[in-house]
Amino acid sequence: MPSELPVDRRIGGHRLATVLGAWQRPGPAYVALADALRAGILSGSVPLSTRLPSERELADATGVSRTTTTATYGLLRDEGYLASRRGSGTVTTLPSGPGARASLAESGGEKPGIVDLAMAAPSAPSSLHGAYLAALDALPRYLTGTGYAPLGLEVLRVAIARWYTLRGTPTTPDQVLVTTGGQQAIALLVAAHAGPGDRVVVEHPTYPHAIDVVRAVGARPVPVPAGDGGLDIDLLESTLRQVAPRLVYLIPAHRNPTGTSLSDEDLSRVRALARRYRTAVVGDEVLTELTMDGPAPASFAGDGSASAYVVSIGSASKSFWGGLRVGWVRAHPDLVARLAATRSHVDIGTAVLEQLVVAELLARSDELLAARRAALRDRRDLLVGLLVDRLPSWRFDVPAGGLSLWADLGAPVSSALAAISVRHGVRVVPGTAFGVDGSFERHLRLPFSASAPDLRRAVAGLADAWADLGVTEPVAGPDRVHAMV
Amino acid sequence: MPSELPVDRRIGGHRLATVLGAWQRPGPAYVALADALRAGILSGSVPLSTRLPSERELADATGVSRTTTTATYGLLRDEGYLASRRGSGTVTTLPSGPGARASLAESGGEKPGIVDLAMAAPSAPSSLHGAYLAALDALPRYLTGTGYAPLGLEVLRVAIARWYTLRGTPTTPDQVLVTTGGQQAIALLVAAHAGPGDRVVVEHPTYPHAIDVVRAVGARPVPVPAGDGGLDIDLLESTLRQVAPRLVYLIPAHRNPTGTSLSDEDLSRVRALARRYRTAVVGDEVLTELTMDGPAPASFAGDGSASAYVVSIGSASKSFWGGLRVGWVRAHPDLVARLAATRSHVDIGTAVLEQLVVAELLARSDELLAARRAALRDRRDLLVGLLVDRLPSWRFDVPAGGLSLWADLGAPVSSALAAISVRHGVRVVPGTAFGVDGSFERHLRLPFSASAPDLRRAVAGLADAWADLGVTEPVAGPDRVHAMV
Repeated sequence: MPSELPVDRRIGGHRLATVLGAWQRPGPAYVALADALRAGILSGSVPLSTRLPSERELADATGVSRTTTTATYGLLRDEGYLASRRGSGTVTTLPSGPGARASLAESGGEKPGIVDLAMAAPSAPSSLHGAYLAALDALPRYLTGTGYAPLGLEVLRVAIARWYTLRGTPTTPDQVLVTTGGQQAIALLVAAHAGPGDRVVVEHPTYPHAIDVVRAVGARPVPVPAGDGGLDIDLLESTLRQVAPRLVYLIPAHRNPTGTSLSDEDLSRVRALARRYRTAVVGDEVLTELTMDGPAPASFAGDGSASAYVVSIGSASKSFWGGLRVGWVRAHPDLVARLAATRSHVDIGTAVLEQLVVAELLARSDELLAARRAALRDRRDLLVGLLVDRLPSWRFDVPAGGLSLWADLGAPVSSALAAISVRHGVRVVPGTAFGVDGSFERHLRLPFSASAPDLRRAVAGLADAWADLGVTEPVAGPDRVHAMV
Repeated sequence: MPSELPVDRRIGGHRLATVLGAWQRPGPAYVALADALRAGILSGSVPLSTRLPSERELADATGVSRTTTTATYGLLRDEGYLASRRGSGTVTTLPSGPGARASLAESGGEKPGIVDLAMAAPSAPSSLHGAYLAALDALPRYLTGTGYAPLGLEVLRVAIARWYTLRGTPTTPDQVLVTTGGQQAIALLVAAHAGPGDRVVVEHPTYPHAIDVVRAVGARPVPVPAGDGGLDIDLLESTLRQVAPRLVYLIPAHRNPTGTSLSDEDLSRVRALARRYRTAVVGDEVLTELTMDGPAPASFAGDGSASAYVVSIGSASKSFWGGLRVGWVRAHPDLVARLAATRSHVDIGTAVLEQLVVAELLARSDELLAARRAALRDRRDLLVGLLVDRLPSWRFDVPAGGLSLWADLGAPVSSALAAISVRHGVRVVPGTAFGVDGSFERHLRLPFSASAPDLRRAVAGLADAWADLGVTEPVAGPDRVHAMV
């Protein structure tokens, strides 16, 4: 393979040191640094085809000897994660061969022997196959067309509108855009509102790919604290007043990663802020239906009135299955039409059969979601029990819904733990991935969407990795596990 | 519905006049101007939620009276295509109600009583249903996973690699990225190479959504002539030397819209230019397989050697069906991994079942494509016959492949013709949509992918619209139809 690929990015020593986080741990420094850099490459926090700082520059930035950085680069070069390019120094890449790119390959099916807790996403319900068959019966009438539907199939837009209406938010089909998953909905909305230099408010911590989208358009993510106490609405208002963002991105219910939710009163306040400051507030509701304890959260879109600045995102990925790649936006019809015009040159439209499958699933969602909630409750309780047993020093609240819990490790070692966990058969994303500035080094997101056997293997692997780290454990207080109210 | 949606765009009088093209025709000027503006809104050339110039400014720019522009705005306001927004003047929008947004709604199935020649895309082959059933049998093993596959399913990457290898371009699966249609492949490649202010070379005329993608990232499309004579390679080289583009986008075979192809010698020259100028050249090969006359064009990727700058795009949309939304990129493995990392926050991955369907279709593509080529040959010949009969003054070459022909109307009336054709039951895209600067007002792209009855209705409607235009027709020479060599 020719080594002449253009390299149009470089990362400085201090920036790289920030991205790598607190990687130090007992044992050879060059191995620990290599583990952190490898994890950064695999997680995408250190982009591919990026020129790394010189060994001397990295040594200065990380406070280790140049011998260490030389050994680190040498190890990763041997492993195939770094390449030397004529005229462009040391460049990040990935080893060739099927297994090597596992972090980007599909999970399930061809998944290697590692438990992947990097994604909080459930497997498919058993009844999905029947929905595919029913959709296949409905497909023929669409085969005479081109199959292009930038707005989405009318039958699905009607089903989604009915879905919102039944949940207390009167909705018409022209307020609905079908997207290729909830991720595309975020990307389309950010691109429609923000450009280079603009500000976009995000909760902190928040969904990492939302931060990626904001940065991809050249905008700046402005974090508003949303820790264990939930979103600070007062701070949200002062931020709206002071930085005049183009968009606000929120996860109103069972927030990823913390699991907290906005109260009904908070929801009303947020909608009022959207109107008062004439700023589009996007509520990502892909997790809203996954309520395991207590009443279901209210719809972010409320009664739907005066909703020009209140935008809701939904998806089949968490409620049903991610492999469908079907999501949606509920917004003002003018915004829906604008987004559809843009998406015509993004991917033209969403796969037709999948849209018919989701229309089927929405019609039977009550029973499907009841089963899913019960299964997730069992897995959440299993994970909580395993953590109490194997990692007693970690503190966390027990989330009332969603797909993950947010553990406080008691020490700033999340990056180091994620880096070496791979060797113990489990992949996790360090807490820093959920922040915009290297925050959350003390935290780790733990999804409970995996199967029970995988959860057991994962916690066993994390416990071994934790032992390797040799963190001196503070005595666990009796209050270290909270049930969320 | 509240009329408080943010308006963040405006279009000046002279820019709007350019976009509307040569809209003048016999009859009331305000109706002709309204037809052109309505067509611009429906085609997206005049974006939605955009503030229009004042009636006086538009009158000055178009050389009509202010009475005319006032009547034009009034007519379109009554129709629901314009809205008056407090503090932001006259803003483009779309009428509410299902039918109104037809230009964005799916074609086929719920298609209104208008023949849509705006898209050059065939309907599905009859055997598609069988491929879906076979894919459904293969689906269960993937249901245990999350369904997320940024690189694409290994089984499809292997099938696509074999497909290239069989066509003379040895390819390994790690050189293949599965995308959500060929359109996403273009968008990912442009975003990976170009940013604000960068230059991207495109053929002229070219695929309109490729121009949209270049502008969406803030880059500037640099046109290189590719008219009836085909692409001017010498001009391509001097352009590479002079403007140092970040990317070159070509359609090497059965070019959209002209139908011309690069010769084998030209292909070799283009690949040599890519290497010499170290500039990525993207060959969009979604139409390559649709050869109706003569030998199949050679693969753009050639023998695959030294291919770091030679990138190929493929898609199931034109060979099989657009409703599948499956395409791919063939590129250097490092670039494939970079694109996959980006697409993780674009749409995460492509629908799993559709990938399995395409793996099925590729295995049986020889028979499927033979049938498709035969059907397209019949439709092309039908369209040619209808045009000779009903619109004898139009001149065009008969394309040896692809999905459309490029007609010279003999007068700069393409925008006006497209605008009034809707009233005669046929939607076409004006030639100007295939240019970057209002060029090709004399030309019209005519897809022959529609059914025979639709083609007959379409040409009848175009003939009526042509009569309305009252263009004085030059005498047709004997050479007005050429077979392409």
